[in-house]
Amino acid sequence: MKLTQQILEGKPRAIARGISMVENDSREAQNLLKELFPHTGKSTIIGITGSPGSGKSTLVDKLIKYVRKDNKELGIIAVDPSSPFSGGAILGDRIRMMRHSTDPGIFIRSMATRGHLGGLAKASGEAITILEASGKDYVLVETVGVGQDEVEVVKFADIILVVLIPGAGDEIQAFKAGLMEIADIFVLNKADSPEADKTEKQLRAMLELGLKDRAIPPVVKTVAIDGKGIQTLFEEMERVLSARNHELQAFRKKKLISWMLKDIISDKLFRAVSEKIHDSEFEDLIARIYRREVDPYTAADQIIGKSKRS
Amino acid sequence: MKLTQQILEGKPRAIARGISMVENDSREAQNLLKELFPHTGKSTIIGITGSPGSGKSTLVDKLIKYVRKDNKELGIIAVDPSSPFSGGAILGDRIRMMRHSTDPGIFIRSMATRGHLGGLAKASGEAITILEASGKDYVLVETVGVGQDEVEVVKFADIILVVLIPGAGDEIQAFKAGLMEIADIFVLNKADSPEADKTEKQLRAMLELGLKDRAIPPVVKTVAIDGKGIQTLFEEMERVLSARNHELQAFRKKKLISWMLKDIISDKLFRAVSEKIHDSEFEDLIARIYRREVDPYTAADQIIGKSKRS
Repeated sequence: MKLTQQILEGKPRAIARGISMVENDSREAQNLLKELFPHTGKSTIIGITGSPGSGKSTLVDKLIKYVRKDNKELGIIAVDPSSPFSGGAILGDRIRMMRHSTDPGIFIRSMATRGHLGGLAKASGEAITILEASGKDYVLVETVGVGQDEVEVVKFADIILVVLIPGAGDEIQAFKAGLMEIADIFVLNKADSPEADKTEKQLRAMLELGLKDRAIPPVVKTVAIDGKGIQTLFEEMERVLSARNHELQAFRKKKLISWMLKDIISDKLFRAVSEKIHDSEFEDLIARIYRREVDPYTAADQIIGKSKRS
Repeated sequence: MKLTQQILEGKPRAIARGISMVENDSREAQNLLKELFPHTGKSTIIGITGSPGSGKSTLVDKLIKYVRKDNKELGIIAVDPSSPFSGGAILGDRIRMMRHSTDPGIFIRSMATRGHLGGLAKASGEAITILEASGKDYVLVETVGVGQDEVEVVKFADIILVVLIPGAGDEIQAFKAGLMEIADIFVLNKADSPEADKTEKQLRAMLELGLKDRAIPPVVKTVAIDGKGIQTLFEEMERVLSARNHELQAFRKKKLISWMLKDIISDKLFRAVSEKIHDSEFEDLIARIYRREVDPYTAADQIIGKSKRS
């Protein structure tokens, strides 16, 4: 397949087409991914998550600059709550990143969080596969740090950065709670705020309370907008990655593969059944469930049974 | 089944056991749901969503009081980011709700947003089924308004309230963007803030820009902590519900049924396959994928093929 070759050569237009195929969940996407898969596993995948307003995008912007100094190549997947309005106008952060878009060593793509339930993580994982195969040294995945799927997406990463800001209070801490366990490094951004030290202390206290089973992850202070702390952050990332227990790393990767495999199996099974059932039969059952003539569990059995007979 | 009868009679302990069965995705849960399903469809389901800090829980607290004055019964499902720490300590909002826990006309349950990917919406939908069957007049579903799954959960509702607060700025607007389309009523809480009028104007301007295909939903101002605006909000809810186009309502319900049915079918199909595959075979394939000896798509086909032969 020509597209496969073009992606392996790192051609931006081919990468974009590949990711679109994945997003549209097209049949050809699977053949493409099969061919690209053997070429993956060499990139460092960086996950960045945090609440809106924590300055994630500015941080990513500065990380891009830092990485590009060494002439390394970078792919970025930004997972954002999709907007019914024009995405660009509201998501102004993105505009800052767009100035990198003329640099061929960088590929940036936004992915919507809407659409098929549970499909986000699969689509993001497959987009990462494409970027890895395209030879990027780093693949950066940026997500909003709330929401089950959004958190799952970030788990694809080799190293996970959780971005916090000073003075956001208990509410913010609560809604980040699900992230405490998965963070490899905490980035305390906007650290020039007078409340920074207090927030850092509170964070460390919470971590000591919560993470009984493992070491407290490092906390790096940054002022992303001024580029402060970016080098320290990068050095810390390198340190964490090189100090990592390889068995642990393999365990983590295998868990992800397991989950992706289950998702692919489910997807294939459902497709096989739905191809054998007419839309009208499906609609008819839905109407009957709506009228409480049949329950959805019995209806599901009927559909599965029928797909086997035909 | 005795449990079914107890749930239909509204016994709190039975309801709690039923919801636990659903959360644990146990086999018996399905038989229970089959038996309860014919008794559903009579409750009004209210979805409440908004960012952490918008005062959703306080609002729910006041809505409970309002509803209880008329001796109506109420079930509440609070979907929250799960915490690795003790849930209660951080999620302090919940504590306020707990004082209702001695009232037999109210059933409150928190559900975690963690765990099996995509399973949250199915589990919540099934918990709603149980609460409906238990004879509750209202079922209230409260979620954080970010995240694909969390937004899906709220779509179960007959009426969807989106809670905003003044002065939260563009960032907040961006991350709420996915909610603009689904809101039936906007609740501008903490409306005693000096920025309330400005925020209301901005909200209306955004809605006029974004919602070209339908009428702009009403905006109700509240100060939940003082109980202000709660009656107006409730009256507005009644108005929206009674004015609703019944065909539209049926269309919405059928879309939900369709999605739930697909989820149940996928679940059943995957279970049937995984029962025929040894864990060791599955582990072996994962290791081979990890070593890039096989791609996950080919591996999925092998598993499906093997499950059919055995």
